[in-house]
Amino acid sequence: MGIYHGAFVMKKQREEEVQPLGQLRKLIRLNREFDIIDLFSDLHPADIADLIDNLGEQEKIHLFSLLDVEKASDVIPELSDASREQILEDMSDKKLTEIIDEMDSDDAADVIAGLPEEQARAVLDGIEPEGSRDLKKLLKYDEDTAGGIMQWELVSVSSDSTINGALNAVVQASDEIEVYNVFVVDRDNVLVGAIPLQKLITSKRHSLAIEAIDKTIPSVQTGVDQEEVARMFEKYDLLSLPVVDIGNRLLGRITIDDIVDVMEEESSEDIYRIAGLHEDDSVFNSPVQSIRRRLPWLYLNLLTALASALVIGFFEDTIRMVIALAVFMPVVAGLGGNAGSQTLTLIVRGMALGEVTFENSRKALYKQSIVGIVNGVAVGFVIGAIAYLWKGMPVLGVVLGLAMIINVFVGTLIGTLIPLSLKWLKADPALGSHIFVTAFTDAFGFFSFLGLATIFLKLLV
Amino acid sequence: MGIYHGAFVMKKQREEEVQPLGQLRKLIRLNREFDIIDLFSDLHPADIADLIDNLGEQEKIHLFSLLDVEKASDVIPELSDASREQILEDMSDKKLTEIIDEMDSDDAADVIAGLPEEQARAVLDGIEPEGSRDLKKLLKYDEDTAGGIMQWELVSVSSDSTINGALNAVVQASDEIEVYNVFVVDRDNVLVGAIPLQKLITSKRHSLAIEAIDKTIPSVQTGVDQEEVARMFEKYDLLSLPVVDIGNRLLGRITIDDIVDVMEEESSEDIYRIAGLHEDDSVFNSPVQSIRRRLPWLYLNLLTALASALVIGFFEDTIRMVIALAVFMPVVAGLGGNAGSQTLTLIVRGMALGEVTFENSRKALYKQSIVGIVNGVAVGFVIGAIAYLWKGMPVLGVVLGLAMIINVFVGTLIGTLIPLSLKWLKADPALGSHIFVTAFTDAFGFFSFLGLATIFLKLLV
Repeated sequence: MGIYHGAFVMKKQREEEVQPLGQLRKLIRLNREFDIIDLFSDLHPADIADLIDNLGEQEKIHLFSLLDVEKASDVIPELSDASREQILEDMSDKKLTEIIDEMDSDDAADVIAGLPEEQARAVLDGIEPEGSRDLKKLLKYDEDTAGGIMQWELVSVSSDSTINGALNAVVQASDEIEVYNVFVVDRDNVLVGAIPLQKLITSKRHSLAIEAIDKTIPSVQTGVDQEEVARMFEKYDLLSLPVVDIGNRLLGRITIDDIVDVMEEESSEDIYRIAGLHEDDSVFNSPVQSIRRRLPWLYLNLLTALASALVIGFFEDTIRMVIALAVFMPVVAGLGGNAGSQTLTLIVRGMALGEVTFENSRKALYKQSIVGIVNGVAVGFVIGAIAYLWKGMPVLGVVLGLAMIINVFVGTLIGTLIPLSLKWLKADPALGSHIFVTAFTDAFGFFSFLGLATIFLKLLV
Repeated sequence: MGIYHGAFVMKKQREEEVQPLGQLRKLIRLNREFDIIDLFSDLHPADIADLIDNLGEQEKIHLFSLLDVEKASDVIPELSDASREQILEDMSDKKLTEIIDEMDSDDAADVIAGLPEEQARAVLDGIEPEGSRDLKKLLKYDEDTAGGIMQWELVSVSSDSTINGALNAVVQASDEIEVYNVFVVDRDNVLVGAIPLQKLITSKRHSLAIEAIDKTIPSVQTGVDQEEVARMFEKYDLLSLPVVDIGNRLLGRITIDDIVDVMEEESSEDIYRIAGLHEDDSVFNSPVQSIRRRLPWLYLNLLTALASALVIGFFEDTIRMVIALAVFMPVVAGLGGNAGSQTLTLIVRGMALGEVTFENSRKALYKQSIVGIVNGVAVGFVIGAIAYLWKGMPVLGVVLGLAMIINVFVGTLIGTLIPLSLKWLKADPALGSHIFVTAFTDAFGFFSFLGLATIFLKLLV
């Protein structure tokens, strides 16, 4: 992939972002294709993709067809999923094959993975046999692992090369790829180490490359989870990371620009899952997709809400005697749910960042318990006092205050335990955990409040 | 900062992560300081920081004192906030000054910003005048802006330099800093462009540097928000970005490793704020800090819950006539809240990623409304049927089903409108938005359910 820095980048700071889109729409209206090609030639592929994303389906397809193969291969990875689907659906197998042939192997594999089976097979048959074999290998790795995000393209030299040899290897590869490190391998392609470009520049040109390497540079095997890979990049400030097989033989590399995308993807996934959203949902998905993805979570929520309803149903007689209980029920449940959500969010995020582990989870539980008790008492006293003043029933104040203390404490506890349990069950700790936490704080809140009220009933009426 | 890749990195893949910590604890118990220093010499600063983070306060301080100044300056930025505070609190101004003198300017400014005022002043007075003046300038920038995350250290050459000159500049700087680009400036230090290292290697050594630059490489001014800066790195696959003043004069640079941290910080902030958490809260904060940070949100939640209680209080007579209403109240409120949270989360995340803007918000609102209506009908029918079968009251089923349809739809609508309104008010769209959404869906859910029930009351009893 080439390196582009279109004039648009500088322009953006001065003009409105809308302007190139307005200009483009005008050119489309006037059908001035040459001017459109001209406009595109100045733009970074990411900016072209932004423009295309903002057009209607027919315009998208038309505009994309104006790009030459090389530019098209740079734009495709930057498009939104929806745009990419619309554009590729309509494209001839021949053109798609040409475009994919131009792409880095990791991007090419991603695009092929998203194609309908028939089209994917046609493309894989169309490109030259070696490339096709390599792509098929990449496609076998789980997309969330090191193997799934690596690319084959890299620069490596043998362990008897000189710095000069390594520099020449960089020069030769520079038309095709961006280089961050030159990898050094032995005769069996076993990874010996990596030399950052800066080190290449500062080393003597006739010295041996092997003297400039860092033997202990980290590497990962193909099966490592991409979240773990991202943490390595973050911790060790890496630009690229070699991927090896079990025998430490060099297979490919992962680059920092892909890690930036991984980090965003993983953060979105956590945020979405806490709220009971499908990880691929998006504001601009088709409504049908969104409905299909969200409805199962709402039905799950319906089940948990019915559990709460059952609890309340059990105390119908108590409520009949003191209707004021119905008034305060949602307060107990709501505050407990919120306290639980606070803790849950901290724990889920802490796990994602590698700060919370099973080893230190007892410490976490202990600290959160203290927070839960103190916050419960702080909120309980206030709501107890309010209930007493509003309804003139001191016992109602006591019952409500006590139930609140219990439920905020329980919420905080359960907010810690649910993500830990999910992780222990090898599930994603974020998975719908908000629904589970509120299910518990609702049911338990109603139970403690109405249960206490039933016990104190004689004092209440 | 040096480049380390300790043996630990490779080891971690084979042995348990706990092992170095166990070894270290044993060495501390035996008081074998030389072996500890030996152990540290093999480790990456990030790994040393991890080990120190896991020790008790006295051990932390003692172990840190064993590090030489250069290593100490590499370890400090990697420590957790709590460890850093404990260690620096106890350190002499003289030693701290020496350590900070060794650090990159952005890291040094971060450390100084976290010191008590007196200690900060002592350190700034201790380092040499030029460095002190530069640090004070950095400290004036808002910490969430390009100025706040940039460093002064960079390599630049004048516009009449050759490639050879640029290469020499890299060699000279290499003891001190990591280089990604060589910046080219004119006589007035106005930024002309940047040359990636790979381009330096592939260019003819006697050609002019200016011929190898990319004139249109992006740059940012000091005041740009760090989230916006991170988006530029992501969009244009940057390794470093020059920071300029209003006159386009080169001031400093931002590097990708800092952006990785920014991305994580911004994601945490969004996740936390949705849940009503302080952005600096953490699982292992002192309970007192956590309590002080979370309690205000719980009190806010108490207020909104009381609003719901008022709504219910208004319908006490209706509930008295049909106690079954109390049973189903939380179901209506809960499902509406969850549907709202789903949409809210999508919108907040979409805004953070720059996908949702005011321009396309109408489209977002339209799509979410469709999702809300369909999901509302889907859930409403089921709960209506369940209520009818359970309580044997067809009208209750109708009222409940209708209220559910209304509240899920309203939740979805309000989940879109609240973050948009917060953004329009120039507040963070994530800020406590979960509490606002559920406040609305609770109050509105009770109102629509009990209101409909009151209208149909004669048919219910």
